[in-house]
Amino acid sequence: MITSLANGRMKELTLLQEKSRARNKEGVFLAEGIKMFEEAPLERLKEVYCAEKLWRRMKEEGEHGALWRKLQSCRDRGIFVEQVSDEVFRRVSDTQTPQGIMFVMKQFAHSLEEMLQNGMERRERQGKQPLFLLLEDIQDPGNLGTMLRTAEGAGATGVIMSKGTVDIYNPKVIRSTMGSLYRLPFCYEEDLGKAVKELRQKGIYVYAAHLQGERFYDEISYEGGSAFLIGNEGKGLKKETAELADSYLKIPMEGSLESLNAAVAAALLMYQAAGYNRRKEK
Amino acid sequence: MITSLANGRMKELTLLQEKSRARNKEGVFLAEGIKMFEEAPLERLKEVYCAEKLWRRMKEEGEHGALWRKLQSCRDRGIFVEQVSDEVFRRVSDTQTPQGIMFVMKQFAHSLEEMLQNGMERRERQGKQPLFLLLEDIQDPGNLGTMLRTAEGAGATGVIMSKGTVDIYNPKVIRSTMGSLYRLPFCYEEDLGKAVKELRQKGIYVYAAHLQGERFYDEISYEGGSAFLIGNEGKGLKKETAELADSYLKIPMEGSLESLNAAVAAALLMYQAAGYNRRKEK
Repeated sequence: MITSLANGRMKELTLLQEKSRARNKEGVFLAEGIKMFEEAPLERLKEVYCAEKLWRRMKEEGEHGALWRKLQSCRDRGIFVEQVSDEVFRRVSDTQTPQGIMFVMKQFAHSLEEMLQNGMERRERQGKQPLFLLLEDIQDPGNLGTMLRTAEGAGATGVIMSKGTVDIYNPKVIRSTMGSLYRLPFCYEEDLGKAVKELRQKGIYVYAAHLQGERFYDEISYEGGSAFLIGNEGKGLKKETAELADSYLKIPMEGSLESLNAAVAAALLMYQAAGYNRRKEK
Repeated sequence: MITSLANGRMKELTLLQEKSRARNKEGVFLAEGIKMFEEAPLERLKEVYCAEKLWRRMKEEGEHGALWRKLQSCRDRGIFVEQVSDEVFRRVSDTQTPQGIMFVMKQFAHSLEEMLQNGMERRERQGKQPLFLLLEDIQDPGNLGTMLRTAEGAGATGVIMSKGTVDIYNPKVIRSTMGSLYRLPFCYEEDLGKAVKELRQKGIYVYAAHLQGERFYDEISYEGGSAFLIGNEGKGLKKETAELADSYLKIPMEGSLESLNAAVAAALLMYQAAGYNRRKEK
């Protein structure tokens, strides 16, 4: 059992928690929580740390719960599993009320090419239209996580992010994805404009959510594949990025509001396009 | 200028920041930020605190900006306005990069009766259907603030919250409302079930967002007034509350997701109803 914060592995976890540079250097990330652990793909798990208290509870419950079985599978695969004292666990954890399990995983390596191919194949096989989210410099971790979660719910093909978007392996982002991080393909692109052009070349229609949009988002029939460009929370889309879109659309706003929350705007757009295609499939 | 954290007013601000009990005892709340201040209704402002640095910047800009004029209007009305040293301001502020202005305001006092009456009058005058959000035990401040913001955007009549919902005057909620707190009526109800019954008596159709819903939210024509019941982030709606609704509806979800974020679900529902009525008005 690890009982000191000075332990090399605990120092490493703290670094992975706080620094995206440390995460990217090692190609790993740190996640927390029982549900996140149960859903974690075994082949990506590298190290698992369990708080003393949770370990004891599992023992008392007779070692047959889903959590215990998952830990057993980890050990069977030779994944490093270790107990940590409650005090040390609490200090390393990013949450106020830690659930008692944290783990190191290999980062995902999706590419735009792979996502485009998946989208096209799914269209051929299932008649489902490709649906992408294009994010420019989203800064709020909760917003990014919520967008991934909603994108999975809407049946999106993937999420493409500008380099200036907050790190998807930030603990707050991971938490708010509610597991979508494992399931929905995503990638960072050095040049978001280039990605927009590639999508358009594949016949995917790119819409920019923009206050100067001419048409309301719910008065468009989203025929074929769609992609939605969402800009930074404070500044919106850069002019040069917005100009690459096929067309602008807007979400009606009453009252004196200047804009909607970015994750809310993304949700309305993705669900509108998905709903159109869902009703058409029938 | 206030230069010490031990100053009685600074101690009071910290209490207002942290304790809902202190806020409710005095019937006031503390807000921060330049935009929030510029939009604040004068008749509710009680005290304004400006950081030294921001004060100096306003002076240098020649005392003619919108912010300076608002401060002047405050003083003209006899509202207490004081400078605070940057160090003290930073320590009292709830934000990591304070904008340099915080202020105490009188709490709002909307009632369900007033909201219902407004809704009915607006229908008669403008042909706009009443639209309500009913929140049960929402815990995340960011979610609550985002729901208020989205409700304003969708043209909702008001937001009705259970007693167990997070305090709307929590600094994080205020921040994420982006000013909607000033404009959209809201109230807390001791008995949310009673509020549901009152809405139904007025002919407003109450929908519960529920995983067991039989119809998709976007396959309903929201004739007449609508209200949407949204439950706690982790536990969903209580059985006894959900049973009071006229009907259940669900939001389609692909992938392995168990639920959408509560603020996202609320946004999809409100905008769907608002969009139906908007297109019908034409």
